[in-house]
Amino acid sequence: MAVTTPQAGTKRVVIDRVEPQVDAGLYPVKRVVGELITVTADVLCDGHDMLRVVARYRRGSKGRWNEVAMTDQGNDRWGASFSVDEVGPWEYTVVAWVDHLLTWREGLRKKAAAGIVEEVDLLVGADHLRTVAERGSGSAARLLAEAAAFLEERSNLLQSRIDRALDAGVIQAVDRLPDRTNAVTLATPLQVWVDRKLAGFSAWYELFPRSATDNVHRHGTFRDVINRLPYVSRLGFDILYLPPIHPVGVTARKGKNNAVTAGPDDPGSPWAIGSKEGGHRGIHPQLGTLKDFRALVAAAKEAGLEIALDIAFQCSPDHPWVTEHPQWFVQRPDGSVQYAENPPKKYQDIYPLNFESPDWKALWEELRDIFLYWIAQGVTVFRVDNPHTKSFPFWDWVIAEVHHQDPTVIFLAEAFTRPRRMYRLAKGGFTQSYTYFTWRNTPAELQEYLTELTRGAPAEFFRPNFWPNTPDILHEDLQSGGRAAHVARFILASTLSSNYGIYGPVFELQESTPARPGSEEYLNSEKYEIHSWRLDETYSLAPLISAVNGIRRTNPALQSNRNLRFHSVDNNRLLCYSKSTDEGDNVILVCVNMDYQNGQSGWVEFSPAAVGLEQKLPFVVRDLLTGISYTWQDTWNYIALRPADVAAHIFVLETV
Amino acid sequence: MAVTTPQAGTKRVVIDRVEPQVDAGLYPVKRVVGELITVTADVLCDGHDMLRVVARYRRGSKGRWNEVAMTDQGNDRWGASFSVDEVGPWEYTVVAWVDHLLTWREGLRKKAAAGIVEEVDLLVGADHLRTVAERGSGSAARLLAEAAAFLEERSNLLQSRIDRALDAGVIQAVDRLPDRTNAVTLATPLQVWVDRKLAGFSAWYELFPRSATDNVHRHGTFRDVINRLPYVSRLGFDILYLPPIHPVGVTARKGKNNAVTAGPDDPGSPWAIGSKEGGHRGIHPQLGTLKDFRALVAAAKEAGLEIALDIAFQCSPDHPWVTEHPQWFVQRPDGSVQYAENPPKKYQDIYPLNFESPDWKALWEELRDIFLYWIAQGVTVFRVDNPHTKSFPFWDWVIAEVHHQDPTVIFLAEAFTRPRRMYRLAKGGFTQSYTYFTWRNTPAELQEYLTELTRGAPAEFFRPNFWPNTPDILHEDLQSGGRAAHVARFILASTLSSNYGIYGPVFELQESTPARPGSEEYLNSEKYEIHSWRLDETYSLAPLISAVNGIRRTNPALQSNRNLRFHSVDNNRLLCYSKSTDEGDNVILVCVNMDYQNGQSGWVEFSPAAVGLEQKLPFVVRDLLTGISYTWQDTWNYIALRPADVAAHIFVLETV
Repeated sequence: MAVTTPQAGTKRVVIDRVEPQVDAGLYPVKRVVGELITVTADVLCDGHDMLRVVARYRRGSKGRWNEVAMTDQGNDRWGASFSVDEVGPWEYTVVAWVDHLLTWREGLRKKAAAGIVEEVDLLVGADHLRTVAERGSGSAARLLAEAAAFLEERSNLLQSRIDRALDAGVIQAVDRLPDRTNAVTLATPLQVWVDRKLAGFSAWYELFPRSATDNVHRHGTFRDVINRLPYVSRLGFDILYLPPIHPVGVTARKGKNNAVTAGPDDPGSPWAIGSKEGGHRGIHPQLGTLKDFRALVAAAKEAGLEIALDIAFQCSPDHPWVTEHPQWFVQRPDGSVQYAENPPKKYQDIYPLNFESPDWKALWEELRDIFLYWIAQGVTVFRVDNPHTKSFPFWDWVIAEVHHQDPTVIFLAEAFTRPRRMYRLAKGGFTQSYTYFTWRNTPAELQEYLTELTRGAPAEFFRPNFWPNTPDILHEDLQSGGRAAHVARFILASTLSSNYGIYGPVFELQESTPARPGSEEYLNSEKYEIHSWRLDETYSLAPLISAVNGIRRTNPALQSNRNLRFHSVDNNRLLCYSKSTDEGDNVILVCVNMDYQNGQSGWVEFSPAAVGLEQKLPFVVRDLLTGISYTWQDTWNYIALRPADVAAHIFVLETV
Repeated sequence: MAVTTPQAGTKRVVIDRVEPQVDAGLYPVKRVVGELITVTADVLCDGHDMLRVVARYRRGSKGRWNEVAMTDQGNDRWGASFSVDEVGPWEYTVVAWVDHLLTWREGLRKKAAAGIVEEVDLLVGADHLRTVAERGSGSAARLLAEAAAFLEERSNLLQSRIDRALDAGVIQAVDRLPDRTNAVTLATPLQVWVDRKLAGFSAWYELFPRSATDNVHRHGTFRDVINRLPYVSRLGFDILYLPPIHPVGVTARKGKNNAVTAGPDDPGSPWAIGSKEGGHRGIHPQLGTLKDFRALVAAAKEAGLEIALDIAFQCSPDHPWVTEHPQWFVQRPDGSVQYAENPPKKYQDIYPLNFESPDWKALWEELRDIFLYWIAQGVTVFRVDNPHTKSFPFWDWVIAEVHHQDPTVIFLAEAFTRPRRMYRLAKGGFTQSYTYFTWRNTPAELQEYLTELTRGAPAEFFRPNFWPNTPDILHEDLQSGGRAAHVARFILASTLSSNYGIYGPVFELQESTPARPGSEEYLNSEKYEIHSWRLDETYSLAPLISAVNGIRRTNPALQSNRNLRFHSVDNNRLLCYSKSTDEGDNVILVCVNMDYQNGQSGWVEFSPAAVGLEQKLPFVVRDLLTGISYTWQDTWNYIALRPADVAAHIFVLETV
């Protein structure tokens, strides 16, 4: 431990344990525009001197600091809040100093109350006031100099001198001219990354463009997707996410239901990217042209939708890079290229990129340029396929690079992997993340998981995006639970998490046959074949989805996750939780029956007091799904939910 | 957020959340010689490649690193332990890399089991082995080159080639020559401060040297203290701590029982330091000479005791610094020096030092030199008075300076203040700290407090030192609880905390009359007058103290705090807890009745299994205070403790 003499031993304040921070400032805290940052810190000084503490914050790392006073919350903890109103990097720090004048003034108050003010106490104060006056100018300086002289003048009555010292005008003038000579601050400011609002509140809809057809024998096109936009928009989604749109490989192409060999008409998996028609900048010819794609992006925007592309950094054996940049792949001694494997499993149709390539720099730059290329085509949302099979430092870098050019870009990490890897990707910059939601299948499991996500360390950097299904995941609950399970899982996803998505139209049409018993793969998966869907089936969940998305948009309580509270219920198949705005002017209570076979009833502990409101009993809750109002008399209230109905309530608390 | 291209994009491993650390490495973790450091870290890499992770550690910050392999504990958490065997600063870090050969070897095993090894798999392995061989030399390199050739030779049987690849000799040779080209490590190593064993396990005895007299009219001397050493040694203490030994001020001297004016024979408070006879380097003439003091230090050493001095950085108005260094004090406009005050309270006999003095550098150096001066006289333990009323950065600096010269020095912080200030002093370097023990007066309060100290963040940096009494604190429990309370509080202090102390002889003689009702001050406190004590009273707790200190010395379980476990008991006036060695060869169970008026009995949940041992039921515990053994049949066992006896058990588990 090197021993060094500090530069300024007169600085006595120490600042410790500043929150919020992620791994001591190694990674930025995340917020969306308009959100609050509530800074707290231990601020300590020896003895009894009084402190001033401020939080400073700014967009970027160079401009002028904004400042907000922190207040003493007791036990040496100080706090203040500020809001961030612009997308991009922010930073904040804490500044603190001993305020001798304040110490003196508070001492004078106490001595005056005890009747023990001495002459010298007023002389000390006069010195303080004069020093402050010298820092100022104009009328404030004059006021303070006069006050100092008044305090020193023994012919004035003692009480009038004390009154002058404690005069509101003097205090105000003094507080505007603090002595920060011995102020201390953090060695390094703490980082914040601010995203646009869509990063924190979004509803995603995934569809296979080639299945946007009226006929399984005709490959769907971008033009078909344009025709589908009114439907997706009517359902109330914000983002339309497309699986990879690039040319599909031919070599080792998979057939229907992941068959090892494809039939002559099988279209292959869109994730087997690259053919002689192009790679990650190419468009699969059967989908249309770049012009068509740009038309889709524009039409989507018109319909209130953003197009999200799937970025999967892997190659089919036919990808142009395999011959153009052989050094980006692992070459084997027999001259072949290493395909993906997880022994004993082999995936011959996929060549992974080699992030240890000596040519890594060119590789990284090319991958970055792919993002920039699609951003240039109007895309600002990316769903990244399996990021946990590509280098973490690469993601840190590429997201920073892209955000440097356009801080509004949203990255969704599709990493279904171990928790610390998922969290690390989020720390490194991913805007949103897939989660374990699909595999949390009881009220207790969901409560535990959501508590970790919204109250634990991840709340500062990990934004969950809940999906009841994906093209890879048809959970057993959906297979066996039918419509009731689809309804419940949809309402859970869309109200527990401010960001959620579904893979349609299979979801709203409740397709739920697995590829084989015990599998989470869909039978006849769209990953390997073209489907054509009848969207107007009477059993479709489209009306419910549309209603819930409408409820999400009109109730700001549902647009955040930090505000999630669980409420006790005396039936362990029921899950009850609320979300409320900071101001308490919008409170939503959701109750879901997670028994998809049987009706369940119980008593839930919910009242305005449970969410911090002063509103008295009885109170009224209105179910936004049915419009029915209930007057609840007590803090424990009865609910009954049957799978044959929509087995959930989305109540709004009627405020008085 | 600046965007920078990393130096080596081929490094794919990331290391996160390394423990132990204090505030992300801002302060060192504390240990004593011989203790373990168990390092854990999240070590992550994309994909399925296998990792190697090692912890590196060294004394100081320059020498050769020692290395220990970390093992995968599941869920991306890795761990290893090492012990620190020398006093002073240490540092440690984590190094991790992808081991492609290991990845290949484990893949080969799985493919071999599935019968799908291909020719190219062996060629890949041969390449790996040859690369490793090139890093090595001698027989290992030859062995690997031969193995590579064997793997490539198609005329060899496939199985024999696989066997050769997995041959133990080949694996050993390979593992000794790892490829660390892409190894990553922490940006900055984490700091550890290692103290000598006494820092972690010590029993302190405080006495006023001037009261080591046979006659209140004769001021006790260092020679008297030398005569007292056999008594203190017989009681089993390690450290004899003396209140300040410096010349006592005359101006504004306090009289008996803190009277505002002293009588002509009142000796004054030893904490009013400094007179015309000297300051912090001086010795109060009535105690003896420097030579006498050195004789005391030597005699104490002979008796197995270290002398601890009280360092109180404050001055009586008569201290030489007041005239020699007026700039070290706050000078008031009327020419007077600012005395200590906490309005409306005033302490005219104490001048605080001004840590914002423009001459702070000279002040700091002088204060450091006072420590060094007493160290030169043989003192290596200091009890620091009210450190929280002196600048925190000063303590950080001065402790580092002293430790730089002598890392064996022990600093005990006497800071009875708010928790974050106490913890900050410990982070900044104090070896041990006074605590709130005295004011934790029920089993539930003690359990909560000890859990925070031994399981929470403070466990890494804050070493509690428990005192049932001090010259400033005679707790109401001792006032009203008499002998039973003294016994219980003594056993709690000495067995809950590996470091503890008592202020005697008042403690063993159970003096317990307060200065006035509701006060925690002793009546006729030794702080303001000389006492003479009869140490051989039959009611003295000396025999119990001697026994317990002996038990502490012979039972290593009581020499640590990390190993503390609380055990459920069905009576909330009883507190039961155990401590056990890592090896489980010494297990102590302590049961204390905290009702000082009534006998209490109950059932305690304790069995070898409760402390992680496999020993079967029934089992035997032996009370080390009485020698009586009990055979306990079950996991819940009955105890009964009456205040008239020693209302505590200190059981040792008889191992089979």
